[in-house]
Amino acid sequence: MRDFNYNVPTEIIFGREKENEIGGVLKRDNIKKVLFIYGTSSIKNSGLYDRVTDVLKASGIEFVEYGGIQSNPKLSDAIKAKDLGIEKGVEGVLAVGGGSVMDSAKAIAAAISLKCNPWDFYNGTEITDALPIYNIVTLAATASEMNSGFVITNEETKEKLGWGSPHCYPKVSILNPQLTCSVPANYTAFSAVDIIAHTIEGYLTSTYSTNLINRFKESIIKSVIETTEKILENPNDYDARAEFMWAATVALNGSTSLGMEGASSPNHMIEHGLSGVTNIPHGAGLSIIIPGWMKWYKEKNRDQFLRFSKEIFGCDDIESGISALEKWFESIGAPIRLSDYNIESDQFDEITDKAYTQATKWWMHEAYSKESISEILNLCK
Amino acid sequence: MRDFNYNVPTEIIFGREKENEIGGVLKRDNIKKVLFIYGTSSIKNSGLYDRVTDVLKASGIEFVEYGGIQSNPKLSDAIKAKDLGIEKGVEGVLAVGGGSVMDSAKAIAAAISLKCNPWDFYNGTEITDALPIYNIVTLAATASEMNSGFVITNEETKEKLGWGSPHCYPKVSILNPQLTCSVPANYTAFSAVDIIAHTIEGYLTSTYSTNLINRFKESIIKSVIETTEKILENPNDYDARAEFMWAATVALNGSTSLGMEGASSPNHMIEHGLSGVTNIPHGAGLSIIIPGWMKWYKEKNRDQFLRFSKEIFGCDDIESGISALEKWFESIGAPIRLSDYNIESDQFDEITDKAYTQATKWWMHEAYSKESISEILNLCK
Repeated sequence: MRDFNYNVPTEIIFGREKENEIGGVLKRDNIKKVLFIYGTSSIKNSGLYDRVTDVLKASGIEFVEYGGIQSNPKLSDAIKAKDLGIEKGVEGVLAVGGGSVMDSAKAIAAAISLKCNPWDFYNGTEITDALPIYNIVTLAATASEMNSGFVITNEETKEKLGWGSPHCYPKVSILNPQLTCSVPANYTAFSAVDIIAHTIEGYLTSTYSTNLINRFKESIIKSVIETTEKILENPNDYDARAEFMWAATVALNGSTSLGMEGASSPNHMIEHGLSGVTNIPHGAGLSIIIPGWMKWYKEKNRDQFLRFSKEIFGCDDIESGISALEKWFESIGAPIRLSDYNIESDQFDEITDKAYTQATKWWMHEAYSKESISEILNLCK
Repeated sequence: MRDFNYNVPTEIIFGREKENEIGGVLKRDNIKKVLFIYGTSSIKNSGLYDRVTDVLKASGIEFVEYGGIQSNPKLSDAIKAKDLGIEKGVEGVLAVGGGSVMDSAKAIAAAISLKCNPWDFYNGTEITDALPIYNIVTLAATASEMNSGFVITNEETKEKLGWGSPHCYPKVSILNPQLTCSVPANYTAFSAVDIIAHTIEGYLTSTYSTNLINRFKESIIKSVIETTEKILENPNDYDARAEFMWAATVALNGSTSLGMEGASSPNHMIEHGLSGVTNIPHGAGLSIIIPGWMKWYKEKNRDQFLRFSKEIFGCDDIESGISALEKWFESIGAPIRLSDYNIESDQFDEITDKAYTQATKWWMHEAYSKESISEILNLCK
């Protein structure tokens, strides 16, 4: 294994009805007032909003709320929520939602502590502190509940950029798989793609890894494939939802990527360009990009591509493995062509520009020129 | 998955020569004086003692040392080290060694904070605090570097008992695989057995688990088998030592056992009875007990035993799987019969008594009567 540091201080509370513990947790941590952020109306429709606010009131926790955080979370929301938090003197951020809400919580918690615009973090302002972050997770996909990263989209510049800091690790994340049972089939499929993407990006690009880490990643992919199929058949299958949910967390909490060398995330990089321009859901963007990227990249890491094809789909050659993954994406209802989302060639230049900016400015993926990104997009038509 | 809480705050620093960072870590944490504990002469012979003390001196960290901690760590040493730590006013405990030294560090760190005899913890004294614990690991086996448990042997009563507390999680553990390259073949084999034992105890006894967790455990066993064979062939194979070392940590840091139901640790329980009486190395005791216990238990959890046989050794029936494991233990030089260590039937009653006390008083394994423990021992003759 290559050298690594690992230090994930997030406390996980996992299981049925565990959201009811949030009041006790905040009291234990001596938090008296929180900024309570959430997404669109779904938590109100499901009754979760009422349950959470009832628990907060019963525990004597004051809360200031900011709802309406959208997917591909917007800078403008983060700024407004941050201003509200500073004005009201909150002591922590409580995020109830999926990856977009949890990502926003990190940017907001740091921006409140440092009294700055969250976009400043992308322009050199170091994150030296953040309010404590508490999550109640309603969508299993991004692992934001147990990592230190976040992605924000600047609507004006159409830039979707990732950042992170050890100060942004959530203090406590509550994962109740029951809360994910209402996630519709398409978003379940997009989430499955996102988890698989988090797992195979490093797996397929690393120039050195251990069998232990390769096997951990294969374990995640196999479990996601199995449980996705069960969930699509029966959305209320608690055991499948639970295994899927934990697979999502461990796919990107660092524990299954330790000691690798040369790993990169080109699919996420290109997808951020794609969704920054088109606002396509992140997982849908990934299921379009991944097969195209695999066809473009396969010869650069033959051993890992062969291993993937064999271990995951029992195929003896790379092409069959890629095709099997593409067919599986299709079978769960994830798009596999840009045309499935009516994204046409006349948008490729803008997407390429955005992805190329990501490559050079943020991801340090020097191997990705405009030409190569354009080639990959053309394989995704 | 069944409900679980997961919160492992230990920071891991993994890689070549990382022990040199200990001074900086202690300074960062504002620790000015530590109790430096270690085992027998091996760290002096290897030069590690000099390197660590040089780093401490260069960083201005005062240290008080207590050497001579033995395997199956003794209560008398923990008491003496605790008294020394209190007398000298240390602010933390630095353990340099393997599982015995790291386990002792936990008992000592808590006993210094609470100013009590470490054995009091087994008699009802709650661990409500402990000095911060720092480890430099020299033997990969017990995962004590990233969990909250410890085992102490009371020489007078021949009781070897496990305990733990969230206050006993190490603050920082430094894992440099190079330091394990001098571990001799027999202790490498015993360590491999211990790691496999940590993995299969829950795997073979759980009445419910997920495929994800089952696969994580299979990943560990496969990697331990592969890397043990490489290490025995070339003790200086850094990559193999490193993968083996991290497999040891994740086998018992909680992450690969989440959300299971009904898991128990009967092999460790019986082995603690065995080594409490005979002082046999822990891993050697386990390689003797495990095959016997498997033969005794196999019908109680057929599905998991079949899965084990198939996944690990490609066998289609349980008996062949058990036999393959036994042969593998033998092939790496681990004992598989009590007679290999000259432990004869006339000691069985005393071992049974100790194991039964463990079963009823500490492990809550009500299924294990004196008769059943005796039956298992007879299968290990």
